[in-house]
Amino acid sequence: MTLSKIREKNPLVHCITNYVVANFTANGLLAIGASPVMADEVEEVEEMVSIASALLINIGTLNTRTLESMIKAGKKANELNIPVVLDPVGVGATTFRQLAVAKILKEVDIQLIRCNPGELASLAGVTWQAKGVDSGEGEMDVQTVAQQVASKFDCLVIVTGESDYLTNGEKEHWISGGHVLMTQVTGTGCLLSAICAATLALEGDPVSNLFETLTDYKRVADIASEHLLLGSFQENVLNELHSISRGAVEWTL
Amino acid sequence: MTLSKIREKNPLVHCITNYVVANFTANGLLAIGASPVMADEVEEVEEMVSIASALLINIGTLNTRTLESMIKAGKKANELNIPVVLDPVGVGATTFRQLAVAKILKEVDIQLIRCNPGELASLAGVTWQAKGVDSGEGEMDVQTVAQQVASKFDCLVIVTGESDYLTNGEKEHWISGGHVLMTQVTGTGCLLSAICAATLALEGDPVSNLFETLTDYKRVADIASEHLLLGSFQENVLNELHSISRGAVEWTL
Amino acid sequence: MTLSKIREKNPLVHCITNYVVANFTANGLLAIGASPVMADEVEEVEEMVSIASALLINIGTLNTRTLESMIKAGKKANELNIPVVLDPVGVGATTFRQLAVAKILKEVDIQLIRCNPGELASLAGVTWQAKGVDSGEGEMDVQTVAQQVASKFDCLVIVTGESDYLTNGEKEHWISGGHVLMTQVTGTGCLLSAICAATLALEGDPVSNLFETLTDYKRVADIASEHLLLGSFQENVLNELHSISRGAVEWTL
Repeated sequence: MTLSKIREKNPLVHCITNYVVANFTANGLLAIGASPVMADEVEEVEEMVSIASALLINIGTLNTRTLESMIKAGKKANELNIPVVLDPVGVGATTFRQLAVAKILKEVDIQLIRCNPGELASLAGVTWQAKGVDSGEGEMDVQTVAQQVASKFDCLVIVTGESDYLTNGEKEHWISGGHVLMTQVTGTGCLLSAICAATLALEGDPVSNLFETLTDYKRVADIASEHLLLGSFQENVLNELHSISRGAVEWTL
Repeated sequence: MTLSKIREKNPLVHCITNYVVANFTANGLLAIGASPVMADEVEEVEEMVSIASALLINIGTLNTRTLESMIKAGKKANELNIPVVLDPVGVGATTFRQLAVAKILKEVDIQLIRCNPGELASLAGVTWQAKGVDSGEGEMDVQTVAQQVASKFDCLVIVTGESDYLTNGEKEHWISGGHVLMTQVTGTGCLLSAICAATLALEGDPVSNLFETLTDYKRVADIASEHLLLGSFQENVLNELHSISRGAVEWTL
Repeated sequence: MTLSKIREKNPLVHCITNYVVANFTANGLLAIGASPVMADEVEEVEEMVSIASALLINIGTLNTRTLESMIKAGKKANELNIPVVLDPVGVGATTFRQLAVAKILKEVDIQLIRCNPGELASLAGVTWQAKGVDSGEGEMDVQTVAQQVASKFDCLVIVTGESDYLTNGEKEHWISGGHVLMTQVTGTGCLLSAICAATLALEGDPVSNLFETLTDYKRVADIASEHLLLGSFQENVLNELHSISRGAVEWTL
């Protein structure tokens, strides 16, 4: 199980992420035995990412200052073969976000994009009715579009939703399960992106490892949903990540 | 009940708020079925607010960069008839905050100011012993001063405290109930301002709608106070917002 | 007990801290009856710290803008004899942090440095294998090095770990107890620094007061560990701070 392997390896994950989910992301990484470090000052990000095992770039509360940091950190990570995950939060919502993501994808080799269907549509130029940072609604064959995006940017793509879809442009997996409450707590997608970054720090085939991580995350959602109210559910997500990564008994559908 | 109506309508609330309460605010809005989006980059706020149903301006951790964003977003919201709520956190504490709020009130039409008595005093130029971002102590007739402020800035005013006071300068409501613990968890006032922004996105008379929201929020505090320790109380506020907006049975005093 | 005394005095603690732990720090201070205010705009920090009883400088998500604020606030605090606590988060990780801390220590009189062994090593120039903002590993006599740092910067030093060490360069205390989970929830060290700042606002001998605070914090960790999963543990830390500062019965090992 990847979450237990992450606990064993204790990778340092450098997160340049938004201030809404920074605490939840840090605790979620700690819950699976990874080490988070949040740092976004232009002058230090190259040095910080150099000691990390993975880099997360999340544009949730992006500004011009942190965009520069993201690109600097990303380029340095590329030089050092440190995997980079991009979470293009709400990329369809504004021109600024679209240009920022285009710039990041042009200047940095991204190993994995983790997004929702609305963000995927924006990346692919598909018409879509997004709503802020929510996924929104539209008609799109997620499978086809995700494969196109994966091929175009030569990276892995994970599109999360009722069922998650994972592809490298050729191989693919669907992961079902989980619970709708997962979409109603802020930061659960952002945290998943961070956990995927930690997963890419592991040995072995990235696609298989990410498949295991996504499966575990659905399991976390499922168990956490014994609490159906939002506050307790959020707490329980951290509890179950902690529990599963410490080897809680296997979960069966 | 407004909270259920918010859940039905699912308004997007653009929050330019402080980093202390961003997560709690996002989860609180999600708990009642609204969609939060936090974005404070000058280059994107006009576009972001254009797709929103309401704008929240909260000066809790204001800086010169985000002040510019607040004003840009506010002006755009005015153009598009999107309601704007101002939470003048700790406005009495520094000259910078006083000037910032004066500038916002001059350049942006605010539909609602949600504040505590200390902040009201500062807005009205009444002598008051504020204490940082806490309300502090002093002698003031909240009713009279709030009506003056409402008239001066042609807006609704909500002053929260042991009893909440709501006025548009003419009509007025007092809302009692709740629990003192509500003042001892960071961000409960900030979250209320965000929920009031979501409320202003509803059809119908704003004063009546806000009165219902304030009544519901008192009810949330009351139910949440079955947990008298701060950590559990914070969690329970989210749980009860979730529960009430999903139509939990009516609460009786 | 210092935590009860803090509740009685209700000191305002001005925190210039990182956005990962801002909410947890605010709630932790509120839980013991202190008043937090987070403000990091250069133009207002001098005025804000002037009404505070203590200043916390935490470099967790430092940038060039906030570094300037930290130094301005620190100098003003010195002028007014307001105690200043420095939490040099991850100082060993990057040159930027090392230079920032060197500058702070040169320009501001710090009354207390609260750090982990890795940060202590960096402050003292001792070779150490740090890991981002985690403590890391190395060989060092904490006692000797902490005393050197205390003498060099003429301040109190607290080094937290399995046992905490407190010294003013001459007097010293070891505090044992607590629970390893305390190191696995983000912000527990940062919150302790903030609580120490509140402690320095009390009358009486700072060393004795800090010794009591550290002892109480170990006790909080111990009681909170009835919940062994990370999400519930985090909540329980707030609950127990609340409970102990309200005079919960004495705890015996």
